[in-house]
Amino acid sequence: MSTATDLFTAHREILDQAIEATRTRAYYSAFNESPSPRVYGETAAADGQAAFEAWRGTTFPLDTPGADGTVSTEKSPFGFALDVAYPRVAPAGVDALVAAAGAGLKAFRDAGPEARLGVCLEVLHRLHGRIFELANAVQHTSGQAFVMAFQAGGAHALDRALEALAYAYTEMTRTPRTARWEKPGRGEPLRMEKTFTAVPRGLSLVIGCNTFPTWNSYPGFFASLACGNPVVVKPHPGAVLPLAITVQVAQEVLSEAGFDPHLVTLAAEDPADGLAAVLAVRPEVRLVDFTGSNAFGEWLEKNATQATVFTEKAGVNTVVLDSTDSFKGLCTNLAFSFALYTGQMCTAPQNVYLPADGIDTDEGHKSVAEVAEGIDAAFGKLLGDDARAVELLGGVVNDGVLSRLESAGSAGKVYVESRAVQHPEFEGAVVRTPTLIGLTAADAEVYESECFGPVAYLIETSGTDESVDLFRSTVQAHGAMTASTYSTSDDVLAQVRDAALDAGVALSENLTGGVFVNQSAAFSDFHGTGANPAANASYTDGAYVASRFRVVQSRRHV
Amino acid sequence: MSTATDLFTAHREILDQAIEATRTRAYYSAFNESPSPRVYGETAAADGQAAFEAWRGTTFPLDTPGADGTVSTEKSPFGFALDVAYPRVAPAGVDALVAAAGAGLKAFRDAGPEARLGVCLEVLHRLHGRIFELANAVQHTSGQAFVMAFQAGGAHALDRALEALAYAYTEMTRTPRTARWEKPGRGEPLRMEKTFTAVPRGLSLVIGCNTFPTWNSYPGFFASLACGNPVVVKPHPGAVLPLAITVQVAQEVLSEAGFDPHLVTLAAEDPADGLAAVLAVRPEVRLVDFTGSNAFGEWLEKNATQATVFTEKAGVNTVVLDSTDSFKGLCTNLAFSFALYTGQMCTAPQNVYLPADGIDTDEGHKSVAEVAEGIDAAFGKLLGDDARAVELLGGVVNDGVLSRLESAGSAGKVYVESRAVQHPEFEGAVVRTPTLIGLTAADAEVYESECFGPVAYLIETSGTDESVDLFRSTVQAHGAMTASTYSTSDDVLAQVRDAALDAGVALSENLTGGVFVNQSAAFSDFHGTGANPAANASYTDGAYVASRFRVVQSRRHV
Repeated sequence: MSTATDLFTAHREILDQAIEATRTRAYYSAFNESPSPRVYGETAAADGQAAFEAWRGTTFPLDTPGADGTVSTEKSPFGFALDVAYPRVAPAGVDALVAAAGAGLKAFRDAGPEARLGVCLEVLHRLHGRIFELANAVQHTSGQAFVMAFQAGGAHALDRALEALAYAYTEMTRTPRTARWEKPGRGEPLRMEKTFTAVPRGLSLVIGCNTFPTWNSYPGFFASLACGNPVVVKPHPGAVLPLAITVQVAQEVLSEAGFDPHLVTLAAEDPADGLAAVLAVRPEVRLVDFTGSNAFGEWLEKNATQATVFTEKAGVNTVVLDSTDSFKGLCTNLAFSFALYTGQMCTAPQNVYLPADGIDTDEGHKSVAEVAEGIDAAFGKLLGDDARAVELLGGVVNDGVLSRLESAGSAGKVYVESRAVQHPEFEGAVVRTPTLIGLTAADAEVYESECFGPVAYLIETSGTDESVDLFRSTVQAHGAMTASTYSTSDDVLAQVRDAALDAGVALSENLTGGVFVNQSAAFSDFHGTGANPAANASYTDGAYVASRFRVVQSRRHV
Repeated sequence: MSTATDLFTAHREILDQAIEATRTRAYYSAFNESPSPRVYGETAAADGQAAFEAWRGTTFPLDTPGADGTVSTEKSPFGFALDVAYPRVAPAGVDALVAAAGAGLKAFRDAGPEARLGVCLEVLHRLHGRIFELANAVQHTSGQAFVMAFQAGGAHALDRALEALAYAYTEMTRTPRTARWEKPGRGEPLRMEKTFTAVPRGLSLVIGCNTFPTWNSYPGFFASLACGNPVVVKPHPGAVLPLAITVQVAQEVLSEAGFDPHLVTLAAEDPADGLAAVLAVRPEVRLVDFTGSNAFGEWLEKNATQATVFTEKAGVNTVVLDSTDSFKGLCTNLAFSFALYTGQMCTAPQNVYLPADGIDTDEGHKSVAEVAEGIDAAFGKLLGDDARAVELLGGVVNDGVLSRLESAGSAGKVYVESRAVQHPEFEGAVVRTPTLIGLTAADAEVYESECFGPVAYLIETSGTDESVDLFRSTVQAHGAMTASTYSTSDDVLAQVRDAALDAGVALSENLTGGVFVNQSAAFSDFHGTGANPAANASYTDGAYVASRFRVVQSRRHV
């Protein structure tokens, strides 16, 4: 038995649990989301932070074929340069990178699904062992506050990775490795033995994003690798370290299991090089996973036609407010969703449609201004104290967010102004609270675009019917990762559900407690649908993994 | 219970059997391939032929939205015009067609997977009831001899359709319709109820081919329809009738089950209109299934980027001859594969690589010329009698095949000349036997292209190692639907299997009996792999159906 299949045996139980969870869609998590010392040990947090700090000012020790010199491109949204240097792949180095990436494909293919899953599961296990280090790396590249970086960038990212592995293993093993076939006839039956082998597509390019470098990259990374495809990781220049750590761990495990470590490589770039576009159209690249802008995502879909392209782009996430039996719950829940990570989640709500004459609530009828006041009051509780506020808001990831925030007020009536928050720990951190802007249904040119960052719109409509129509048409045309609604009427809920099916977007109903529309739970909630322009794929369904390998058969008489 | 779900219940057993067969890959067929009166009844053959004859000279009664006038484009390869007129969709009618096709989507979506499967299974059941009519229609459009038209165009096409339905139902139901989710926490657990709905992608365009109008169209047609996508069928102008009958049956069943019959439409064209290219890039079209030329297939892959495109194009099917313990079996099997339907199958072998100094056999060492003689002798037995020959060869589907055949001899040494055969029943039939041409490894410019039709090459190499290398490199570069090999050496077989994995092509080993490399059995053999340039998809694996729908969820607290 090889090392890799030993690893498979060692991690088999967690894989089986994960597969079962994808079938039942019940709650499951393999990686504890609490950074508490009671879970991870007394020294884990300090050790992880020290490991992160130790990278600062160094050259990250990765061997990247084709690299020439280094690049150092990361700046923490909390106010300091990371000053970590990574091997730089310039366009001139792509030939060498691609050749080296493909060199180990055959041995990894021939090792079979269990060996590949063993490697991937061990990578998750070791990343989990470095979760505090990863969390610091995610915090200081994305700007997420620490606990969120630990959860979304650590435990939940690992869960999403495991989910992708569960689907990959299910897909690769749904066809038996061998089969007997016996066709009855007039004389002797025709008898054959058949062999079925899952073979990889070729190179897989994973293009990371700045805000969720691990969570958004892991599903494609692990689904591709498990199916035997060498993975070239092109990180966002602003968020390299979390993926450098990931690649380092993957190379370690691959080497120890006897495989070519260059089955996984990190292609850090000088942003001016536009490396992703060069890599994405290489004939050797047969899979592309991308999270980022509409413009580049659509470019990939149109131009990387030699590959199967999975994109998560942007959309206008929508809330339809009709009525509620918990006005306070509604306001708190929405305020939290707007504020969490400064609205820099692809799942954060933006467009809140509500009747111009207000909504019925358990606290009486509320005008639009009163709804805004309710949300503002909730902001006050969540964000009034700077020390607490920064743990929810994190930092502003880049200047684009700031400039959009600054110009947002001119688009409509400012119900709630954004406020600059002084981070008690990081002097240079750029922290802002959300703004809430009033619009009407006529302001389509404003609310039909994503205003990425802490900007939300209260959009007055002629009533819930128009709200639902706008929800449907806006999402069909411009996409959405999430939608939610509040209503005490079963008829309205049915109407919104129907519109959500038409628009192809996941719907959350009457969230007034501890679940937020921004959040999707691995193994139970699909992230994105692939059914509207915001994304052409979903984390994780069968379609997300089924085309990452092909089945090649041989047959012979017996 | 609706009519559609009654139909599901009625056909449930066959669906379950089909699903089980796709899992075991053991022999299964739901539609008897024997046209014998003992199976189908004494009058079935005559009734079916009469039904076919009754269409001749008529306007086929189909209502196609957007159609204007009619077209009549079919000519039997057996020597007569069909003279059946079909509603013509010109590019100017596409707006109306697309609008009408989409009108019934929502009701069909909301009916759910079981209702849609019920409709599709009933369509198969009724097509089976018209199998002799279909076989005549396939015969007199494709040129297949009757028994082959009955089998490949009837029973096997229905089996491939059922296989696609089995995969579609499995995929749509692998996520439960509802789930409970309960996340433990410090206080009360978070509890949610979730609903998951399979929603269609949009319109599905199925572009038929001349040679296998049903067999190659049914997998995409039924996979798309089962997943809720309205299907626009654009038949090859030379093979409309089999798909017109199919659309007629589908519309009947849809209507009777209370759905919009225009969920399935036939878009017959004047060939000069280039209708497929117009339809394929419509934004409403989200799925395209195509069988045909490399040129148009690659155009679709590059240009229909708004859709998921499934293509089966052309390749160079390969045989590696190393040695055999049944020289007669080898010669007979290869001769049959070359001759069947005049080599006009996308699976027919073309490039036979063998050592220039010949091969070892149970009848002693055979030179290349002796191998050619052995195949020629087998042709003599199979095709020496005209009346028997036409039942294997069928007719030449179009003039392109004839002209390629006529110029093939100039490319190399003619070992076996093609012969014109007089069809005893159809005076105007164009029937030809295969030619066998000798080449060497240096003649890459000849054997690296598909010469569609009854042309096979015996290609001399320096030995089996070079044969295997050429097999690998030629298929990687130019694609193949099939490959086969003959060797008595386990080492050589392992070497060829490995090359087949590298090249991404299915391999048949030592076929000397009643199984031919051209033939793939539904439920057990995959047709095409998607892993080489000849096709980007396979009949039928998970990847072929998983992206024909998306999952949209809603969730709420309980």
